[in-house]
Formats: sequence, structure tokens, C-alpha cells
Amino acid sequence: MKQSQLFTKTRKEAPADEVAKNAQLLIRAGFINKEMAGVYSYLPLGLRVLGNLETIIREEMNAIGGQELLLTTLQDKESWEKSDRWDESKVDVWFKTKLASGTDIGLGWTHEEAITAMMRQYIQSYRDLPVYAYQIQTKFRNEARAKSGLMRGREFIMKDLYSFSRTQEDLDAFYEACAKAYERIFARAGIGEITYRTFASGGAFSKYSHEFQAISAAGEDVVYVDKEKRIAINKEVLTDEVIAELGLNKDTLVEEKSIEVGNIFKLGTRFSDPLGLSYVNETGETKPVIMGSYGIGPGRLMGTIVEALSDAKGIIWPREVSPFEVHIVSLGIDNEEIRKASDSLYEMLTSAGIDTLYDDRTEKSAGEKLADADLIGIPVRLVVSARTLESASVEMKKRAEADAVLVRAADVIVAIKTA
Amino acid sequence: MKQSQLFTKTRKEAPADEVAKNAQLLIRAGFINKEMAGVYSYLPLGLRVLGNLETIIREEMNAIGGQELLLTTLQDKESWEKSDRWDESKVDVWFKTKLASGTDIGLGWTHEEAITAMMRQYIQSYRDLPVYAYQIQTKFRNEARAKSGLMRGREFIMKDLYSFSRTQEDLDAFYEACAKAYERIFARAGIGEITYRTFASGGAFSKYSHEFQAISAAGEDVVYVDKEKRIAINKEVLTDEVIAELGLNKDTLVEEKSIEVGNIFKLGTRFSDPLGLSYVNETGETKPVIMGSYGIGPGRLMGTIVEALSDAKGIIWPREVSPFEVHIVSLGIDNEEIRKASDSLYEMLTSAGIDTLYDDRTEKSAGEKLADADLIGIPVRLVVSARTLESASVEMKKRAEADAVLVRAADVIVAIKTA
Repeated sequence: MKQSQLFTKTRKEAPADEVAKNAQLLIRAGFINKEMAGVYSYLPLGLRVLGNLETIIREEMNAIGGQELLLTTLQDKESWEKSDRWDESKVDVWFKTKLASGTDIGLGWTHEEAITAMMRQYIQSYRDLPVYAYQIQTKFRNEARAKSGLMRGREFIMKDLYSFSRTQEDLDAFYEACAKAYERIFARAGIGEITYRTFASGGAFSKYSHEFQAISAAGEDVVYVDKEKRIAINKEVLTDEVIAELGLNKDTLVEEKSIEVGNIFKLGTRFSDPLGLSYVNETGETKPVIMGSYGIGPGRLMGTIVEALSDAKGIIWPREVSPFEVHIVSLGIDNEEIRKASDSLYEMLTSAGIDTLYDDRTEKSAGEKLADADLIGIPVRLVVSARTLESASVEMKKRAEADAVLVRAADVIVAIKTA
Repeated sequence: MKQSQLFTKTRKEAPADEVAKNAQLLIRAGFINKEMAGVYSYLPLGLRVLGNLETIIREEMNAIGGQELLLTTLQDKESWEKSDRWDESKVDVWFKTKLASGTDIGLGWTHEEAITAMMRQYIQSYRDLPVYAYQIQTKFRNEARAKSGLMRGREFIMKDLYSFSRTQEDLDAFYEACAKAYERIFARAGIGEITYRTFASGGAFSKYSHEFQAISAAGEDVVYVDKEKRIAINKEVLTDEVIAELGLNKDTLVEEKSIEVGNIFKLGTRFSDPLGLSYVNETGETKPVIMGSYGIGPGRLMGTIVEALSDAKGIIWPREVSPFEVHIVSLGIDNEEIRKASDSLYEMLTSAGIDTLYDDRTEKSAGEKLADADLIGIPVRLVVSARTLESASVEMKKRAEADAVLVRAADVIVAIKTA
């Protein structure tokens, strides 16, 4: 895409009321727009990143048997009364409104109730199980405090998968498969190294749930990490007993602030019981369906990547997440020779299927263009200038590295592929 | 995909309170689920159709210079007060709710206000124009009456594009380009023949707007159609004067019920004036930005296709919209030879990149399987049975046609491609 066509512009300053680094950088670079606290629009660059993250998540969920669907925001209170989560004394994040008829409805902040009620139509027999169904959908939570940018939204996108199994053993096996899929997702998203499977509080049906916590000074959680064993314990469940049970040593645990980038939870019959989701087993007995839930917020993940992978100049996108693979920056583009060389480089990369942002703007100085490229954070930058033309080369620099190298035009594609 | 893995099942009956044919068929075939009146979830088959329609729309919007973004549901009342559309005496479809702080917010039923307010950051000079920005996003309208299935939702997905131009002439040119793109979209979606560009009421800035009306007995609109000139007039603007102005003849106009599948509207400065979106032109004068808006509802489009393209047995999907290209129906799959032949046909098509649903269910009779295939409506059906094995063939039948033909296994892929 030609940058002259992109309607967004970089900004020197983020809004004065924006205190989170992730939102400051993403707003300044033109990825998101703040509509109100905790409510952000995705602009073209941001939507590309979001789409890349959703593709990673979708591929990994499909690989473990997930079937994608799309549930609704508007929620009928009946199902939520059955599970005892409608009342605001039980759940304090509801947004509620009314139909024209006066009937109360809520905006979905999670979807256990809706999907459990729906599955009664499709699950009756042991032959109908297991089912793993997920969606990537917008959720609403009426957070009193929403000052962490994309990390704590009042309106935010979630991937939520729900598993429906015959037995606890089947649930346990899928739970492990999903945990492994989550590890692959965070690795592909560039935060595998800093993300730990973390023991957190369970419920009536399991002693623990698991969170995936990414170590970050911007985190709102506190975890205790064993870096060697790659396990962490959420502060809320940290006791000597738990440390002993997990075979860890108090002295080697390091306290860290962290961001919860995913969680997996064994629900058991918490929802299938009150909502009446059961199946008939091989011997004709009626049994409740055993459920689990598995969440990742792609927007929060984007914010976490920015918190973890940025420097004073801007963002440093991991390759698979970046809005474009390559950023061509043409310096002195008013010169016809430089314009031609830049255009033909852009055409060459585009023809080779390399997704490229091309800074073809004429009204910007070299300094402004290079600063914008650093702020936007595409991993590979190619500069075309009078100097590079002299040697029939382009200057290639990785965003994450300090030094640039000259690459001959004929070798550019190979250099990008192996960068 | 193997049908034994698909969690949805077909149903003999739609819910008793569902009166719209499109929703009845889509629910019975397992494409959607009714959450409440006017609120439908998309199940795996339905989400595939929705994705195909969104891809068509996205490709055509990108081809005319559209840049995709994603605005938010939660709406700050300030911008809407400026345009005088916050008050419920002016707009009767609002869903409103409150932040925890008590601040009123609304759920977006359209996005002129939000995008106009946002564009003030990115449009200052004539050099920043034009901008064509669109989203595919969920909207909310508190409809008192929502009995038309996917055609009138309280929660529904819209593609809404907004154009920002320097002059009325630039707006007019883009408006025509978008009208042409809409014609391509409806043609690709299989309803080009029955869809007419329709003159409808304009606003302060243009005498007419245009709707794209698909002729259907299920329609809530009434239009007068000149089938030869492929033009229609909405009943609401039908006068002798308008007929004469458009060069039509009252006697050749046919009254038809119709579904509005798209609309395009010249907004002029209706929103840029109250929201203060202006630009500085080449001679240094400050001018208001000239806007247009362009909507298509992918869900309503899905419903319209079902209303238009179905028979007593079920849906007949157009090729580019269908959830799968081919439906393999294996009859007598308990027989090992038939199972093997069916499996290898499925593998052959999948390897060839043909998106295939494979009815490998063992517990269903031949009659049930064929009825399900007709209900689901994939355009090409391949039956494998004892009879077809005898001649080393498969039986190929188009959903839209009555007769089947035997195709030798080696010729199947060519036959599908040319079907």
C-alpha cells in the first residue's frame, strides 16, 4: 500500500488523558483511535494487526478441532437468571438496556449461558460429543476503571472457545491440547518467551484454573515465576502448600508484574446443570455435559505486544503480526530517478507477494519519514535514496537492530525472506 | 469438512414463533440460531456464508479505494447531540445504557457521527482528500417489530462506507463508482437479475438517494419497476413529475414488493457542518468536507438470497456464496467399499483445493441424507452409492437442476470446475 493513500497520519502526542504506553504508541502511530476510556476504534493499520492475530488464533483453534460460530451481543436475561449471573450484586460489569417493549436485556460480557442454552438443540447423545465451538466476537464490560489502553476495555474483542465433553477425562485431555495451542499462539505472536502458564484459582470443579501471564511492568496482575521450569503462580493462590504441591521452591520464585493474555478454565457442570444441557450415554443414562472455557483477547494481545516490544522510538512488531512485512522509505522522492527506483522496488515486492507499505509521500522530510517508520514498527525497512542509487542498492535495516546493510537490488527479495 | 464432525443438525421444524421463510430455512438447515426476535447467532455453516459475502463486499470496496477500519458500538452522546440525533424524539431505534459513572451512552445504529468526529484528526488540507473508509461491523436498532428474520435485525452486521470529498463533483463521481461496485456485489451474490437501482427520497443535499431493491414477495418495501431500463422508483417518491423526470412511462412500471439490500446517500455537509469537519483548499480557504454514505447488510443479503433462491426442499446457494463448493453424499457408508470410495473422493477434492462437505454419517438413511443435502443447498452434489460404484462413477447433480448425471471418477474435478 502506498503511504500517501493511507488516511491516517502519525501524531507527535497522544491524547492528554491517555496514560497507557500501549495506547499512546498505537494512537500516535495511527493504529487505533480513542472513542472514550476503554473504547478504541481500529484504524487500517490496527485492523491489519488485529486480523493477523485473529488468523493465528483461528488456525490454532481449528487445528485442535474448534468450529467457529458467532454469538450475539444482546442477551436474554432468562438464561442468566438460571445460572445466577444476571443480578448486579453477583456481576458488576453488566451493561443493560431494554427492548422497545420494556423487556430487560444485557450486553454479553461472556457467553457460557448463551452457548450452553443453544447446544441443547445439538447435543442429546454421547454420539454428539465432544463439541469444541469458538467465536471471535466483541464483548462489553462496564469497567469502573479503564486506564490501561487495550488491556482493559469496556468494549473489546475476545476469542472464546467452549468445550463440551462426556467425561472429566475427555475434558482434561482437551484442556491440555488447548494449553499447548495457546503456547503456540503466544510464540507466533512474539511473546512466547515472556509468557508463563500460571496457576490461578479454580472453581467448584477444579482446584486450579490456568492463566497465561506475560511479564510486563504495565501488568495489573502479580505472579511468582519459576523461569527455569517455565511455571508461574498467581499471587491470589500463592501459599506454601501450593508451592510444595507444584514442586517449586519459594526461594527461586521471582515476583513479577504481568498481563493476563489468556485463560483456560474447567467449568465442569457449572453451566450444564442449571441450563439443563445433558446427554444420554452408551448405557442409556442421562448425564450432564462436562464443559470448559478458553479465552484470549486479540486486542489485549496487541496491547501486550506493544508494551513488551517497543523502544523509545516506537513499536517493533513481530513478523507474523506486523501490518506489513516490509516498509519502503523513499528519501528525496521529488527526484525523478529516486521516484522511479522506489516505484520499481515497490512493484517488484508486490509482484513477489510481499505485503509492503511504501512511503511515497512527497511533503515529508527524510527525518520525518524515518521517525514515522520507527514509530509504526514494521520489522524490515528498505531505504531508497540518492546514496543507495549510487551503488544500485537499497539500504535494509531491521527495526529490532541498530545497523543497516546495503543490499543489491537483485538480492532484495532473498534478503527479505531470510531477514 | 466431514459432516459427522459438524455439531449442527438439520431440524424438521423451525421455532413456532419464526414466521419469516429465510429464518425458517436457515434455522432448519443449521445456519443460524434465534436468540430472540431480530437477534440471530451464526452457526458454522452460516458463518461461512457470511464470510463469503463479506469477502465479496470487501474486494469490491477495496477496488474503488476503500480503506477498512472498525469503529465501536459504544457511542458518546456528545457527537450525536451536535448532529441532533441523540434525542429519542428524533431517533426511535436507540438502545441506550450507562457507564458505571452514570454517563449516558448509546449503541451505534449507524456511524456518521463517530467517523466524522474521528476524521477531524486526519483531514485538514485538500491534500488529505478524498478518503473512502468502511467497516463491516455489528449495529443495533431497537426495532419495535422484528419479524422478518435476517431482514430486520435488532442486532445485525453492516458494511458502511463513508466518503469524504473536496467538492460535489468529486462526491458525484465516487457515488457512481460505488453504485457500479454495488451492482457487481449483487451479481456475485446471485441476485443481480432481481435487484434494481431505485430512486428514493434524498435529503437537503440531493433530490434523490438510491436504494438497491431486490424483488421479493417477502419484501417490506414497494417499488415500481421498469424492467427494460432496469430502474425502479420507491413508492415513497412516486409522482407523475418524478416518472417524467426519469424518462419513464407510468404504464410500463410494475408494482413489486422488494427488499432493500443496499443504499447510497449523498450527505453533503449534513454531518461535516455540525461536527466541524473542514479542510483548507488550494487557495487557503476553509471549506466543509462533502460526505456520502453507502450501506449493505451482509446478513440481510444472506436472508434475501434465501428468500429469492430456495424451493420447497430448501436453499439453493449461488456458487460464490455457498458454505462449501461441493457436497459429497455417501449412501450405504456402512459398506466398506463405499466408505473407501467416498473417503478417496473426499481426499481427491480436498487435495485439489475444492471446499467440500462430506456426509460421512453412518446413522442416517439415504432419504435423510438426500433431504439434508437439499435443505442445506450446496450447489453441486456428488452421490457415492453401490450403484455408482458399479460403473466406477459418481452421480453429480446441481441443486438448481432436476437431473443427475453419472461422471467417471477420473473426470470429477473437471466436471465440478465446469458445472
